[in-house]
Amino acid sequence: MARHCIGIDLGGTAIKFGLLGEDRRFGEIIQRPTPTDRGADGVVEQMIAGGQKLANQAAEEGDEIVGVGIGAPGPLRISEGVIVGMPNIPGMENAPLRDRVGEGLGLPAVLENDANAAALGEFLCGAGKAARNMVLLTLGTGLGSGIIVEGEILHGAHEMGAEIGHMVVQPEGEECGCGQRGCLERYCSAKFLARRAARRIKAEGVTGPLDETLEDKGEINSLDIERAREAGDAFAAEVWDEAAYYLALGCVNICRIFDPDEIVLGGGLAGAGEALTGPLMGHFERLHWSMAPVVTKIAIARLGNDAGVVGAAGVAWRACGE
Amino acid sequence: MARHCIGIDLGGTAIKFGLLGEDRRFGEIIQRPTPTDRGADGVVEQMIAGGQKLANQAAEEGDEIVGVGIGAPGPLRISEGVIVGMPNIPGMENAPLRDRVGEGLGLPAVLENDANAAALGEFLCGAGKAARNMVLLTLGTGLGSGIIVEGEILHGAHEMGAEIGHMVVQPEGEECGCGQRGCLERYCSAKFLARRAARRIKAEGVTGPLDETLEDKGEINSLDIERAREAGDAFAAEVWDEAAYYLALGCVNICRIFDPDEIVLGGGLAGAGEALTGPLMGHFERLHWSMAPVVTKIAIARLGNDAGVVGAAGVAWRACGE
Repeated sequence: MARHCIGIDLGGTAIKFGLLGEDRRFGEIIQRPTPTDRGADGVVEQMIAGGQKLANQAAEEGDEIVGVGIGAPGPLRISEGVIVGMPNIPGMENAPLRDRVGEGLGLPAVLENDANAAALGEFLCGAGKAARNMVLLTLGTGLGSGIIVEGEILHGAHEMGAEIGHMVVQPEGEECGCGQRGCLERYCSAKFLARRAARRIKAEGVTGPLDETLEDKGEINSLDIERAREAGDAFAAEVWDEAAYYLALGCVNICRIFDPDEIVLGGGLAGAGEALTGPLMGHFERLHWSMAPVVTKIAIARLGNDAGVVGAAGVAWRACGE
Repeated sequence: MARHCIGIDLGGTAIKFGLLGEDRRFGEIIQRPTPTDRGADGVVEQMIAGGQKLANQAAEEGDEIVGVGIGAPGPLRISEGVIVGMPNIPGMENAPLRDRVGEGLGLPAVLENDANAAALGEFLCGAGKAARNMVLLTLGTGLGSGIIVEGEILHGAHEMGAEIGHMVVQPEGEECGCGQRGCLERYCSAKFLARRAARRIKAEGVTGPLDETLEDKGEINSLDIERAREAGDAFAAEVWDEAAYYLALGCVNICRIFDPDEIVLGGGLAGAGEALTGPLMGHFERLHWSMAPVVTKIAIARLGNDAGVVGAAGVAWRACGE
């Protein structure tokens, strides 16, 4: 009889479900649409239905389910198991998601922030498998992060830690939605990198492929920049390099503070692979102190968008099974 | 019968000794000169002599000694108990200080970096007594730091973490001895604050009390700046405020990353008390994000120069007694 935990990853458009075994092997991941029109009730019902399906499959195989972990976007009150609110799902305010789903499935349940869950996923089953200390940076719409210290997720005293995207790297720099200036994510998330480029194209009258794309589509994204750079566009190369520079600066600070085995890069921008890590490593090695050689590895994430659901199950293992 | 651990704090000019009880009460601290002319042998003998004196006193009272903790300046190989080297004590290279002192005293022994020990000292017995997550910044010659996460000292994967003084806060800023640019300590340690001011006085032809002191003594220190500021000198106020600004930026980043209960300020500059925390809090509240109110306390250290010896004993309690 094998033992598994259920992982559930709540996103704005889909809820993912999967089983993580004691042996750290992960089964098939199933996906259901996120109901957005029936508040917490709809989400809870969908989570119980998807979870029950996996539990039934496990029962047929004679396997045991030990617990369920739910990863969800913040803000959360993690230790209370409560979602504070979700902008695109009215009626989720102060929803006690953990207890309702746990009761519905008849399993011990635990709630975790999705960025922390993704970090634990990569740590347990992905790029960070060999690490004891690891930081995941997810370069997507914003810059999400999760920090593993000696094998444990870092939460902070008020569950507001691990916000590396809001580490200030440029004093009095770009205004951020959080109310600060010069936050790391304003320089190297996929979205803000593209936004900075678009602003410069307009302000400086830059011409070339990106200017044309901007005119055609009304916007540009990080993939447009990456392609223009590969095609030899100098402006795209400059913009891309600037993002790599700030990301390298962030990585240097992570090394000085955490000295991790590994920094793992996920999210849309990390899809560029070597095109990102190449310039990044160039800046990183130059900016890094010379008192000791570079010992922290920088690697691309391995689990892609599944890191969150894997990690959610991992959180359940930590809380219920180990 | 009370139980105690011996703390030993190795400094460049003095070695301190003290006993920390199970009840977190600390006894009298004794001090002996650091022998600098007989390499590791001299240091080990002095440590054993001082430690034995405390052990004898405890035995007379019928008390038990559980272990000994040694705090020492880096670089160290902490888990091996080895001092890599000390600039002002020839012959300390690769000294197995932990094992030699432990064997000499017949006690389990443990070695810790002095900045980490000081943080644990403040955490256990000083300004951080109510905290679970705490960061100590020691504003002295450099900017030393120790980080406590969920009650444990953060070391990092290669024992090189918790170097907040070398967090880059100004891209391409002041050159640092570590080989980086724009490190926090270059803007707000007592020594570098004074050095920045002296450089500006010469470069900009600043006149006033600091210029006079610089001419008289050939140098100025942070206390000169503090006094000139109190006496109403505008340049001193500007320089002091700049240090407070960068320190506030560092504190904001600490909050985003660790979300601690408390940031504790120690070292020479912290002796200014309210004259430092006043401008610091002004900048901190302005630079801090607006997504949630400020919840991390910023406080002045309580144990002064004794934090290291108290914390060294605390490290021994962690390793041997608890």
